[in-house]
Amino acid sequence: MVGPENVSIDPADLACYGADAGFVTGRPDGVVLPATTEETAAVLSLAADAGLPVVPRGAGTGTAGGAVPTRGGLVVALTRMHRIHEIDRRDLVGVVDPGVVTGDFQAAAEREGLFYPPDPASLAVCTLGGNAATGAGGARAVKYGVTRDYVLGCEVALPDGRVVQLGGRTAKGVVGLDLTRLLVGSEGTLGILTRLVLRLVPMPPAVATLAGVFRAPADAAAAVGAVFSAGLVPRCAEFLDRMSLACIGGDLPFPVPGDAGALVLLEVDGPPARVREEAAEAAGRFEAAGALRVFPAAEPGAAEALWAARRGLSPALKRLGRPHKVSEDVCVPRGRLADLVAAVEEIGGRHRVTVLVFGHAGDGNLHVNFLFDREDPGEAGRVEAAVADLMRRTLALGGTISGEHGVGAAKRPFIRWETGPDVLDLMRRVKSVFDPRGLMNPGKVFPDDADVG
Amino acid sequence: MVGPENVSIDPADLACYGADAGFVTGRPDGVVLPATTEETAAVLSLAADAGLPVVPRGAGTGTAGGAVPTRGGLVVALTRMHRIHEIDRRDLVGVVDPGVVTGDFQAAAEREGLFYPPDPASLAVCTLGGNAATGAGGARAVKYGVTRDYVLGCEVALPDGRVVQLGGRTAKGVVGLDLTRLLVGSEGTLGILTRLVLRLVPMPPAVATLAGVFRAPADAAAAVGAVFSAGLVPRCAEFLDRMSLACIGGDLPFPVPGDAGALVLLEVDGPPARVREEAAEAAGRFEAAGALRVFPAAEPGAAEALWAARRGLSPALKRLGRPHKVSEDVCVPRGRLADLVAAVEEIGGRHRVTVLVFGHAGDGNLHVNFLFDREDPGEAGRVEAAVADLMRRTLALGGTISGEHGVGAAKRPFIRWETGPDVLDLMRRVKSVFDPRGLMNPGKVFPDDADVG
Ligand SMILES: Cc1cc2nc3c(=O)[nH]c(=O)nc-3n(C[C@H](O)[C@H](O)[C@H](O)COP(=O)(O)OP(=O)(O)OC[C@H]3O[C@@H](n4cnc5c(N)ncnc54)[C@H](O)[C@@H]3O)c2cc1C
Ligand SMILES: Cc1cc2nc3c(=O)[nH]c(=O)nc-3n(C[C@H](O)[C@H](O)[C@H](O)COP(=O)(O)OP(=O)(O)OC[C@H]3O[C@@H](n4cnc5c(N)ncnc54)[C@H](O)[C@@H]3O)c2cc1C
Repeated sequence: MVGPENVSIDPADLACYGADAGFVTGRPDGVVLPATTEETAAVLSLAADAGLPVVPRGAGTGTAGGAVPTRGGLVVALTRMHRIHEIDRRDLVGVVDPGVVTGDFQAAAEREGLFYPPDPASLAVCTLGGNAATGAGGARAVKYGVTRDYVLGCEVALPDGRVVQLGGRTAKGVVGLDLTRLLVGSEGTLGILTRLVLRLVPMPPAVATLAGVFRAPADAAAAVGAVFSAGLVPRCAEFLDRMSLACIGGDLPFPVPGDAGALVLLEVDGPPARVREEAAEAAGRFEAAGALRVFPAAEPGAAEALWAARRGLSPALKRLGRPHKVSEDVCVPRGRLADLVAAVEEIGGRHRVTVLVFGHAGDGNLHVNFLFDREDPGEAGRVEAAVADLMRRTLALGGTISGEHGVGAAKRPFIRWETGPDVLDLMRRVKSVFDPRGLMNPGKVFPDDADVG
Repeated sequence: MVGPENVSIDPADLACYGADAGFVTGRPDGVVLPATTEETAAVLSLAADAGLPVVPRGAGTGTAGGAVPTRGGLVVALTRMHRIHEIDRRDLVGVVDPGVVTGDFQAAAEREGLFYPPDPASLAVCTLGGNAATGAGGARAVKYGVTRDYVLGCEVALPDGRVVQLGGRTAKGVVGLDLTRLLVGSEGTLGILTRLVLRLVPMPPAVATLAGVFRAPADAAAAVGAVFSAGLVPRCAEFLDRMSLACIGGDLPFPVPGDAGALVLLEVDGPPARVREEAAEAAGRFEAAGALRVFPAAEPGAAEALWAARRGLSPALKRLGRPHKVSEDVCVPRGRLADLVAAVEEIGGRHRVTVLVFGHAGDGNLHVNFLFDREDPGEAGRVEAAVADLMRRTLALGGTISGEHGVGAAKRPFIRWETGPDVLDLMRRVKSVFDPRGLMNPGKVFPDDADVG
C-alpha cells in the first residue's frame, strides 16, 4: 500500500497541490503519491468508498486548472511513477509510467536512435501522463502531429478501482470502439492513466533552424503560408509578435531590428542535403515576403539559443511587469491565421488590455496572453470581456477555443459555445459510463448550469 | 423527403444489399438511398418510431459483414451522397459527403496539388464514409497513418434523428471528449456519418517503387526490418507470399524466379533526388538480405503495373479454383512479423487448410486468406478451427485480431479474447449513450452471449 510518507494532509503540501501553471486555485483534502498501478487503483477504490473526489495530477504545468482540486478531494500525483519500462527498436514503441518527464523520454529514445516528436514547451517538467490526458501539442505538431497520434495503448485505473488495458502495441488496430483515443484528451475526467504505449519514429538525421523577422504580423503569416504553398512541410513554424520579441529579444542570438513587428522560427528536418535545400528555399520565401532579417542558425548552439528563448517566453512575460496573466490557446483553420492575429489586435484595442501573442503558426494555433493587474477591478473586467470576445471571434473563424491546453476549469464557461448542447450532453453521458458517481476530476471540462453559454 | 425511386423492397434489390465482400449474408426489410443529411436523419427518425434496425452502407466492400443486415431492418446506403463540397488549399482540408469514392477524392485533391494518403486496395470502389466508419488503412499507412489520422471533423445523424457536428477544420483541437475519433472505426454502431472534414497534405513531388523477390518469407521480413533499421520510412512495404505470387505472377512486369517464396513491394516518396537515393539504399538492403531479384520500377508504367497486380490480388484468388475464402486481417507489433508468418504456415499445416498471406508488412498487418470449399464439411470445420487458432496466436504475439477491416459480424465471436470483459462492457455502455434502443447496426462488433469467448 501507499506508505504514510506518500500521503499528506500537511497544509504546506495541500497549498502546493492547490494550483497548476494557470490562475485557477483550489485546496485538496489530501495528496497521495502512489508508486504502482495497484496502489493507484487502491486509492481510487478507497476514494469511491468515501465518496471523495479524485484529481489526477502530473507535473502541474497545465494552464487551464485541470489538475487543480477546485472541489477538494484527493489529489493523486503520478510523479513517483516515473519508470521507462521499454524502448523497443524493432516494434518502434516505448512503454512508460505516466509520471515520466517528457524530455527524459525523448532523450532515452534518442539514445536508441529513435524520435518521440511531441514537444510541449514545458517538456523539461511536464509528464507523459499529463501530455496524454490533455492531448498535448507542441512546436513539431505541424509535421508530426500531437500526443494523440503517438498513444497506441494505455492502462487505465477506473474510478471504481478496476484496471483496464486499452489499445496495444501494434501500429494499427480497429477492434471495437476506440477507447484509447477517448482517454487521450479526457483531462482526468474518465480515469487515471497508469501506463502508456507510445509510438516512436526513426530519428531524422539532420535539422536546420532559421528565424525570420518581419515588420508586421500579416507579413509573417504570409511568409508561413508561402512556405507551405511551396510544398515544404517544416517541422515547426512558430510565431512571435512584437511584444513577445520585446520580452525575449535580448535572449536571441542576433540583434532584432528596431522596426520588428513579428518573428517566425522555422525548422526543417530530414536527410542533411535535403534539409540544407529546404532551409535555403524557406529563407528565400521569407525574403520574398519582405523579411527585415533572415537568420539561419548555422553556428553550433544558435538553434538551441533560438529555442531556449522561445521556450523561455512564457516565464519571461513576468519581465513586462504586469502581475497577472490569462493565457488562451485558440486555434483556427490554417488559412485563417492572419485573420486571427488581426482579430486579437482589434480586441486588445477595443477592450484596452495588454495582449501578447505567440504560438504555433503552422497549425493556426496561437497563445494569446492577456496581461493585467487583478487588483484593478476595471482592468480585470475588461480582460474578462476580451477573453469572451476572443472565444467568439475564434469560433466565427471556424476555430476552436483550445488547440492544446484543454478546457480544465478555466474554459468550462465557453465549451458549450463550441460544442452546442447536444454534443455536450453526449460527452457528459459518455463520462457517466466511466464515472457514474461523478467523482473523477469534478468541476472540469463540463460546465455547471450557472456558467455562460 | 426521399422519393419513392430511392426506396426499395424489390426482392432483387434486397438480395443485392444483403451481402458485402465477405462471407456473411443477410436480408434487409428495405433499402433507402437518401440524398441529403436531412433525408438521412428523417429515415433514422422513422426507423426509430417503427423500432426497425438501421444498417449504414457505403460501397459494401467491407469484408467483415459490417454493412450486412443480419437482423433485417433498413439498409441506408449513402452512395447517392457523393459530393465533394470543398478542397481548400490554404486550410489543407477537404469537406465531403460520405458516399464519395475514395479514389475520386484522391484524384480531386491531386488536381489541387494535394495528397490524401489513405489508400485501401479497394479505393476505386469504397467510400470515404465507409473508410471513416471502419478506420480503414491501406498500403501507405506505414508512413502516413490510417483514415483515423485524417478525419478532423464529422457530421453525424444519430439514431434518434438528431444531427450533430463533431470536431472541426482546425489542425489541432482538444475541447471535450474526442467523440470524432470515437465515431471513426465505430462501424455504423453509433450513428450515420453524413459529412466528413478530411486533412490533406502537400503532394510529395516524387515517388519510386521497387520490388524484391526472396526465397523465404523470413528473408523478406528481415529485408523490411533492415530498411527500417537504416532509418528509412518507406511509404509502403507490402508483402506477398509464394501462393500470392503464384496467383498474380503473370501480371507482374518482370519474370518471377522459380524458387521465389515471397515478394516485397516497397515505395518511397519525397523530393526527387532523395527518392532516388532512398530507393537505391533500399535495393541495397534487399540484396544484402539475399534477394533473388530486385526490380526497380524505373520504366514508365512499371510501378502502376506492380500496384495493379497487388490490388488485383484479392479478386485473383478466384484463379486458385477454391470456391470459398475467409479473409483475416490480423496485426502484430512491427518486430513480430516473421513470427506471425511462421505461425500462419504452421497453422495451415496443422489444420491441413490452404492458406495464402499478403499484406502490409511495414505495419505488421497481414491478410491471411483461408481458401476452401464450404460444401466439404470436414474442410469447413478445419478452416473454422484454423481461424480460431490464428486469433489466439496473434494475441499471444501481442497483436490484434483486426488491423483494418473491423469486427463487423464475422469477428464478433473473438472480440472478447482481445478486449476482455471489462473493456467490452465499457464499449457496450458507450454505444448505449448513442443508441439506447440498440437499433443502430445490431449484431455487429458486440458479441451475443452465445458467442465464443
Ligand atoms: C511554460 C509552459 C509551456 C507550455 N507549452 C505547451 C505546449 O507547447 N503545448 C501544450 O500542449 N501544452 C503546453 N503547456 C501546458 C502543459 O504543459 C501541458 O498541458 C502538459 O501536457 C501538462 O502535463 P502535466 O504533467 O504538467 O499535467 P498536469 O498539469 O498535472 O495535468 C493536466 C491535466 O491532465 C490530467 N492528468 C495528469 N496526469 C494524468 C494521468 N496520469 N491520468 C489521467 N489524467 C491525468 C490532470 O487531471 C489535468 O486535467 C505549457 C505549460 C507551460 C507552463
Ligand atoms: C479487394 C478489397 C481490398 C481491400 N483492401 C483494404 C485495405 O487495403 N485496407 C482496408 O482498410 N480495407 C480494405 N478493404 C475493406 C474495405 O474496402 C474497407 O473496410 C472500406 O473502408 C469499406 O468501405 P465501404 O464504403 O465499402 O463500406 P461498407 O462495406 O459499405 O461498410 C463498412 C462498415 O462501415 C459502415 N458504414 C459505411 N458507411 C457508413 C456511414 N456513412 N456512416 C456510418 N457507418 C458507415 C457499415 O455499416 C459497415 O459497418 C478491402 C476490401 C476489398 C474487397
